[in-house]
Amino acid sequence: MSDGDPLVIFMPSGKRGRVAPGTTVLQAARTLGADLDSVCGGRGICSKCQVAPAIGNFPKHGVTVTADALSPFNAVEQRYDDKRGLKPGRRLGCQAQILSDVVIDVPPESQLHRQVVRKAAEARSVEMDPATRLVLVQVAEPDMHAPSGDLERLNDALATQWGIAPATAPLPVLARLQPALRKGGWQVTVAVHEAQAGSAPAILDIWPGYFEGPLFGVAVDIGSTTIAAHLTDLSSGEVRASAGIMNPQIRFGEDLMSRVSYAMLNPGGAAEMTVAVRGALDDLARGLGQEAGIDPRLIVEATVVCNPVMHHLALGIDPVELGQAPFALATSGSLDLPAADLGLTAINPAARAYVLPLIAGHVGADAAAVALSEAPETSDDLVLIVDVGTNAEILLGNRDRVLACSSPTGPAFEGAQISSGQRAAPGAIERVRIDPATKAPRFRVIGCDLWSDEAGFAEAVGPAGVTGICGSGIIEVVAEMRMAGLVDASGLIGSAEQTGSARCVPEGRTNAYLLHDATAEGGPRITVTQGDIRAIQLAKSALYAGARLLMDRMAVSRVDRIVLAGAFGAHISPQHAMALGMIPDVPLDKVRSAGNAAGTGARIALCSRSARRLVEENVRRIEKVETAVEPRFQDHFVAANALPHASDPFPNLAAVAPLPQVDFNTGAGTGRRRRRP
Amino acid sequence: MSDGDPLVIFMPSGKRGRVAPGTTVLQAARTLGADLDSVCGGRGICSKCQVAPAIGNFPKHGVTVTADALSPFNAVEQRYDDKRGLKPGRRLGCQAQILSDVVIDVPPESQLHRQVVRKAAEARSVEMDPATRLVLVQVAEPDMHAPSGDLERLNDALATQWGIAPATAPLPVLARLQPALRKGGWQVTVAVHEAQAGSAPAILDIWPGYFEGPLFGVAVDIGSTTIAAHLTDLSSGEVRASAGIMNPQIRFGEDLMSRVSYAMLNPGGAAEMTVAVRGALDDLARGLGQEAGIDPRLIVEATVVCNPVMHHLALGIDPVELGQAPFALATSGSLDLPAADLGLTAINPAARAYVLPLIAGHVGADAAAVALSEAPETSDDLVLIVDVGTNAEILLGNRDRVLACSSPTGPAFEGAQISSGQRAAPGAIERVRIDPATKAPRFRVIGCDLWSDEAGFAEAVGPAGVTGICGSGIIEVVAEMRMAGLVDASGLIGSAEQTGSARCVPEGRTNAYLLHDATAEGGPRITVTQGDIRAIQLAKSALYAGARLLMDRMAVSRVDRIVLAGAFGAHISPQHAMALGMIPDVPLDKVRSAGNAAGTGARIALCSRSARRLVEENVRRIEKVETAVEPRFQDHFVAANALPHASDPFPNLAAVAPLPQVDFNTGAGTGRRRRRP
Repeated sequence: MSDGDPLVIFMPSGKRGRVAPGTTVLQAARTLGADLDSVCGGRGICSKCQVAPAIGNFPKHGVTVTADALSPFNAVEQRYDDKRGLKPGRRLGCQAQILSDVVIDVPPESQLHRQVVRKAAEARSVEMDPATRLVLVQVAEPDMHAPSGDLERLNDALATQWGIAPATAPLPVLARLQPALRKGGWQVTVAVHEAQAGSAPAILDIWPGYFEGPLFGVAVDIGSTTIAAHLTDLSSGEVRASAGIMNPQIRFGEDLMSRVSYAMLNPGGAAEMTVAVRGALDDLARGLGQEAGIDPRLIVEATVVCNPVMHHLALGIDPVELGQAPFALATSGSLDLPAADLGLTAINPAARAYVLPLIAGHVGADAAAVALSEAPETSDDLVLIVDVGTNAEILLGNRDRVLACSSPTGPAFEGAQISSGQRAAPGAIERVRIDPATKAPRFRVIGCDLWSDEAGFAEAVGPAGVTGICGSGIIEVVAEMRMAGLVDASGLIGSAEQTGSARCVPEGRTNAYLLHDATAEGGPRITVTQGDIRAIQLAKSALYAGARLLMDRMAVSRVDRIVLAGAFGAHISPQHAMALGMIPDVPLDKVRSAGNAAGTGARIALCSRSARRLVEENVRRIEKVETAVEPRFQDHFVAANALPHASDPFPNLAAVAPLPQVDFNTGAGTGRRRRRP
Repeated sequence: MSDGDPLVIFMPSGKRGRVAPGTTVLQAARTLGADLDSVCGGRGICSKCQVAPAIGNFPKHGVTVTADALSPFNAVEQRYDDKRGLKPGRRLGCQAQILSDVVIDVPPESQLHRQVVRKAAEARSVEMDPATRLVLVQVAEPDMHAPSGDLERLNDALATQWGIAPATAPLPVLARLQPALRKGGWQVTVAVHEAQAGSAPAILDIWPGYFEGPLFGVAVDIGSTTIAAHLTDLSSGEVRASAGIMNPQIRFGEDLMSRVSYAMLNPGGAAEMTVAVRGALDDLARGLGQEAGIDPRLIVEATVVCNPVMHHLALGIDPVELGQAPFALATSGSLDLPAADLGLTAINPAARAYVLPLIAGHVGADAAAVALSEAPETSDDLVLIVDVGTNAEILLGNRDRVLACSSPTGPAFEGAQISSGQRAAPGAIERVRIDPATKAPRFRVIGCDLWSDEAGFAEAVGPAGVTGICGSGIIEVVAEMRMAGLVDASGLIGSAEQTGSARCVPEGRTNAYLLHDATAEGGPRITVTQGDIRAIQLAKSALYAGARLLMDRMAVSRVDRIVLAGAFGAHISPQHAMALGMIPDVPLDKVRSAGNAAGTGARIALCSRSARRLVEENVRRIEKVETAVEPRFQDHFVAANALPHASDPFPNLAAVAPLPQVDFNTGAGTGRRRRRP
């Protein structure tokens, strides 16, 4: 272009250059590499290329834009505006021609690779770049004197109009090609899947004429106890519906190793569990589509994250090797396969599934997904990321190195194996405070904003009332019991005499703490038993030991910040977690909840092919630590059993609440907890 | 290598070069690019690399080979010889080391890319290069301190030991990986599929330790009337079993257009026909495996050739567009897909299918396969290739250009629509001679070597006796009737009075020729009716018109040679075909039968990936002629109706038998047929 040609500057990218007068804004964007969406390829149909010319003097850019910098509104734009309405100041980029110097604002919704906004500043930013997208093509009509197939002419159109390499089509899609082309007057919208830029494209679906979309994907996180899925818009990255269900494999064993044992001891046991989990995935996807009120055919992608045992069972692989050293995975790499192969029948039959890579025999795709979401490898400070579940995934790292391990915490944190435990649902106690003086509890339940000692609580919780304790509730109540001097450092619940509280009631040969008694109204009697404390001690010791093992490997005695992930991590109280000794000691403001980071990682992989590449690279780089054969893990585990364990006091927690130094075996001392010099 | 290093010459390739002393023969072959097979990768297990050193003086090669040119028999060879036996003079190429100059004979069975011997000299030679092959790999054991999946370590082994790119594995194969590796002591044989050299490999199956094979493929030719399949050894190219069945779609319509009509008129009709043909394919494959007594799991490849309507129906595509101009194909390119997608469930579940490309809307993959088999594009002289079936595929060409068309001959040539017609099976009349003087017939039936007038015929054909007339029989009897003066040039059968033969019997308002009457013994009465003659006239006119149309396009009035293809082409009598006016006139010794050339083409594509590339290139180059919209086709068709048609006499045929010039409408003239000046 010559110096006399109009200068065009795209904002917010700042991409600039000169183009021949009469060039459309869309052409200019493509030439200059500015991000401007288009599904119809410049036919004035899709309006995805809407832009707003900025008029006036822009000294920063060195240009003055006159009102006639773009060609006048043309008939195509007028028709579009009449029919569907253009916002004031907006133009269709494929119609408006550049006549003189101009600054073009590309609004977020017109950016193909628009950024998905993440809440946490330190979390990874994501640019939309899904593996499947919609494109409109104008296909040449058949000519019997130069015969070629409709697919071949469609591929010619994809090549010339979109630069897409020859695509294959599954037979059922191929079967719909001819009717769609004829119904659409040789114009069709196709869903093109390219696993990565440059990989062989596949046509997943086809619609006559212009089809606006959007397409959807489901991001699935298969946990040992719960399976969560998010229906995500593949254009905007927005979550349109979320759902979670219990993993039906629970009937074969509550934790991973009991499921591996089930597979080892029962011929066909692994296959039974495969059928169970695939059925649940299908139900979840079906339910999400129904909840969002969308045609299930529009769900064309799925991503799956899970721990290695869930991974193998979902893929139909016997997990027996994961039950014994050297914990060999059948495959550790990412997988790109037909979603139908995973039993997903309720979505588009040609949908593709991407299964995130595994890190090691005990460190799964869920940990890889957490790393993808939380980006420890970009962190300046040392971050400990703990994904709490039946199996905890633990990551420790910064820019220099990232370590990972998993720890078998068991299902106690999810409310299982707890006498009054239940999953997080309305009626479950999720917050507990115990008055250190009176030892009286107050609590909140899910579904009610009032504390139990506030007026109107009984009416607010309704007839269903208080039903049990969920994971965050059990952590709080145990920590509060410890802080109120009801439990000693070894985890023993004191008797009414020892504690001076009538709420400490005998239960068998041990004591229990009476949290709530509604038996008079025919409701439940909710206690925290000695067994509950033991279950929580085991779980928290495992979690803590895993974190400490990574800190040993990193040769550090402290971390800079902690991210609590997992559905449960979102609800956990950091100070109570620290009081329990679940996590190492850091300033409270350095503990952040990341929600379901594994699920977020799955969503990121759904929205972005570059994220898939990134997670594949990351898992190769992450240093794997195998807790199961590491003697130090056992040492840390045993040492972490106490409340708090003696080797690692909690200086930050001291500011929150003093820990009484009681011992209900010997009856020795009370008062502020001992501090190391 | 220095000049002092041993010189090694591989025969028959002539590949030669110097190698360091101590180099194994297998290594030398790989270095010098000589073709030497190996499945075990040089571990002394598979014996596929057997060679025979030639000892003595070879002035032609300029070397003298001493008895100690190779290292002595080693322990691995001795063990192999003891266990399985080595032929005298043979060595294992992976064990024998080259110590001094040597000439190495590579026997055919040790050549990986050995040539498949074809009977006809002008047919294409084929070098074995199937898409799926067996390789033995030694896989590294898992290390929990450097965790990686078994598949990833298998891929490492494939890369380092065989130079194979990272392979994917379908989930059911992946599920068998871990047990196979452990059972095989980390040695497994895998069936690796690479659609083309350089395309993404897939592991189709896995066996613990060394698995000798061979693997098999099925080459399928789906005709409108019959479906034929050949079970082929993918190492040697040998056919191990062949079978043919009626196409069950016949119940929906005898010819292609009636099936297209069925699809158009009946909702779900196309799907019904898809189910029918897929079921037949599956039955055929199952039967072939049983006949050959092999594990169906060993069948890992399939190739499919068929005409466009059969192609679309087999793929599950409604063929409605093929019923009307412009006869648009849904896809014309080759397809590489899971064989299971075509309903092939009786073979390896991971088997792949290659569907040959189509030439045009009416010229199918069967014609492409005939071109692959008969190689007209390499012919010095002008060859006309006619694949006779319900739809005839016709190719005309030489090195310079190749034209193709198809012609709707209908099922008469396959014995259908003929009053006493039947498919070629024991009891069917396949050869007929009529004495020109007495007008008495004699014939032969399939399954009996005697002519009907020879002693012992009745006993030889057995109680089932003579059951009907097959395609080659009907052509012969009609031609013989014409040559015996029983039928006039217009195709009219004369009465007993007109012909002087009591075998010409009235049947309704026309006459019939009594070929065989076994009613006295409770057997059938076999006649050739006027309707039969008309059916054959229509069929042969269509065939001839197609050939003439291509000759017009090529601007030639004669061809140099004719190849008759099709299962039926193998049995047809060239002089009778010419007498009927089915094919243009050439010297009789220039007519060759190529048997089921389409099936042969399918077998070639099964054995050779380069043949797949070739057929893909060829179909692009072949010039397509659409008979359905070509007015000259109709002209030729009408002109070709006569027996013989007036415009094109048969000079070569005159040497065989004079054609009487009778006309049963006017009763005019007899004697030698008219010759053009």
